[in-house]
Amino acid sequence: MIKIAVMGFGVVGSGVVEVCDKNGSSIQKRAGEEISVSRILDLRDFPESPYRELVTHNFEDILHDPEIAVVAEVMGGLEPAYSYSRALIQAGKSVVTSNKELVSEKGAELLALAKEHNVNYLFEASVGGGIPIIRPLHMCLAANEIDEIAGILNGTTNFILTKMIREQMPFGEALALAQRLGYAERDPSADVDGFDACRKICILASLAYGRHIYPREVHTEGIRAVTLEDVAYAGDWGGVIKLVGRAKRLESGKLAVRVSPAIISHESQLGTVDDVFNGILVRGNATGDVVFYGKGAGKLPTASAVVGDIVDCVKAKGTIRSLTWTPSEGGEVEDYRRSPVTPYIRCRGVHASETVESVFGTVRALHRKDAPRDEYAFVAGEMPQSRVDDGRARLEEDGLEILSTLCVLDY
Amino acid sequence: MIKIAVMGFGVVGSGVVEVCDKNGSSIQKRAGEEISVSRILDLRDFPESPYRELVTHNFEDILHDPEIAVVAEVMGGLEPAYSYSRALIQAGKSVVTSNKELVSEKGAELLALAKEHNVNYLFEASVGGGIPIIRPLHMCLAANEIDEIAGILNGTTNFILTKMIREQMPFGEALALAQRLGYAERDPSADVDGFDACRKICILASLAYGRHIYPREVHTEGIRAVTLEDVAYAGDWGGVIKLVGRAKRLESGKLAVRVSPAIISHESQLGTVDDVFNGILVRGNATGDVVFYGKGAGKLPTASAVVGDIVDCVKAKGTIRSLTWTPSEGGEVEDYRRSPVTPYIRCRGVHASETVESVFGTVRALHRKDAPRDEYAFVAGEMPQSRVDDGRARLEEDGLEILSTLCVLDY
Repeated sequence: MIKIAVMGFGVVGSGVVEVCDKNGSSIQKRAGEEISVSRILDLRDFPESPYRELVTHNFEDILHDPEIAVVAEVMGGLEPAYSYSRALIQAGKSVVTSNKELVSEKGAELLALAKEHNVNYLFEASVGGGIPIIRPLHMCLAANEIDEIAGILNGTTNFILTKMIREQMPFGEALALAQRLGYAERDPSADVDGFDACRKICILASLAYGRHIYPREVHTEGIRAVTLEDVAYAGDWGGVIKLVGRAKRLESGKLAVRVSPAIISHESQLGTVDDVFNGILVRGNATGDVVFYGKGAGKLPTASAVVGDIVDCVKAKGTIRSLTWTPSEGGEVEDYRRSPVTPYIRCRGVHASETVESVFGTVRALHRKDAPRDEYAFVAGEMPQSRVDDGRARLEEDGLEILSTLCVLDY
Repeated sequence: MIKIAVMGFGVVGSGVVEVCDKNGSSIQKRAGEEISVSRILDLRDFPESPYRELVTHNFEDILHDPEIAVVAEVMGGLEPAYSYSRALIQAGKSVVTSNKELVSEKGAELLALAKEHNVNYLFEASVGGGIPIIRPLHMCLAANEIDEIAGILNGTTNFILTKMIREQMPFGEALALAQRLGYAERDPSADVDGFDACRKICILASLAYGRHIYPREVHTEGIRAVTLEDVAYAGDWGGVIKLVGRAKRLESGKLAVRVSPAIISHESQLGTVDDVFNGILVRGNATGDVVFYGKGAGKLPTASAVVGDIVDCVKAKGTIRSLTWTPSEGGEVEDYRRSPVTPYIRCRGVHASETVESVFGTVRALHRKDAPRDEYAFVAGEMPQSRVDDGRARLEEDGLEILSTLCVLDY
């Protein structure tokens, strides 16, 4: 029997304990040993919980228990998760986590530490909830150079955008609904401003390209500025607006990494990823496009990814199965302004179409019902972000008001 | 440096050699060692190939070369692939394969043999081409009980059906086009009669449920009987016709496994899997629905899956990383007639709607443009297959002609 501990008895933590209980026999079969939760770390007491006897407030109870071989860190946040994870790894325990903040900031360091101490640091649950993506990306695509990764990585914003697209619900109303349903936090910033998606694309990019890509290096836009007018124009173009995190290898060898709302074709496999679901597209030079789809969050899906990692640690028995990437040397990420982009711009003003043409050349004009006569929306060809920014500035100089800017993706 | 051999220098085999060459440096990074193809077994010579020096006609050259640690069996067919694989495993070499026929017939035996000899037998490429599905199913979903698997597993039939749906091209014409494009063999039976999809669902079901499920146990229908009329009615229902292989755990503990054309909703993630693409849905009790999508066949996608397995064997270095299932005890698969199904039936005759109602109760009638007045198509509620068959017989007794029968899926 293998003893494990769970740090953090919130939504995911209680899910981990529940999955271990509920699917115990099949887990045992796959792991080759029985897995038993022997300690739960949390600041709170849980007098009503059947697991109340396992709860401790003292991290040392886990750190110094030689029988505990694997620890699930599902506390979230940088501290104390970071210090705890370091200490556990140094004590020879494997750590599995759903903590995308920690992995995206300290992944390279913790992976190296795990290697040094001959244990594992696994984080399947940090991206895509219950969707297997980390290990498939690393192992099954071992034979590919990864050209590009693009993902709808945040279920909350995808729920909001789906409501805007399907029911013409304005952003504020859709956000309030998401909050009522428990999909969004009271402070929704991490989701709607794109930070959550940014952490996840950083983890995927680090894994695919072998160098730590930090969230602070990645241009990140959220969905607050997306309007129903943009949704209508996207529909006319033949697509939908999604919050997409993407990483692409440029010819220069650098990576273009960004998070922003983007227009994707209805025909795309990502275009049909709706509601709280996530979808991640991996473009390999041998496989072509491979897409992974499923619930990107939620108690049981995320818990199941954590437990899958626990099973892997148990099966690995000391051999190092950790995924790995090396610290950043700086300069891996291409300057945002040099990255190529296909812009959509919505603007207002007299003679808009002539002005736009004089700045951007031939563009595709889009239409929507009941548009004011002086509104003009268009999609131009691919160009560096700097040309988009300069073009927008010129449109403004020529008297147009820029109402919104998005990009168009070709997945 | 790790030496490998490739048995079969056809489409997939030449792809394996090409991927090893082209992505050599990233493969080396991931495997931790350089991987070098030292032998290629084929009956033919390849005087024009840059790899001609590596070609041998003699299996013994591979079997008795102590330096060859991993062999890719991409010959296809049961023999001599089966005997060769056995001999290689017994000689202490790991074998990786794309051979779905062999895995679906002899998987349990070869897996047990590999375990006995402390080597690996891996077969990621046998299902879904370049889509990572075998390992994600086994490892990342370790925490789930798998309730159901449903897949569009055959690219050729999916191409044909897509042509029928999008361009109203009749089956025969679409098949001829697929043959011209090289998607279908001159003898297309393995694809269009569902045998290929059957082998693949057997492999997935064996893995998910831990017992060998044989193709001969699985009710298999192909797509030859699907007509443009059925396509039109499916559209009216709100869906498309796809060839789906599925395995579902019934309350009895037995499995319902079948391959047949089926109507799937446009809204479903499987409903948008078009052309030669494959899509596989895995319904876990913790993850919910997870879908894997990508190119299910083709030289480089399949080769990349084979090479991924080779990398895994190299990294495993002797530890057993094999997936596993045990031999069938018989009786795992539920009698086809007892399995639940939601039928679609198209029939012809006077008073068809009244007759249908008297047999099946309330049904949903479907409509299509220019239908003959005596044609009637409907979808009934879920019932055992035997009730569908009995109902069809009663309709015929009452003077109706059954034109086609399909089932409706709720993925």
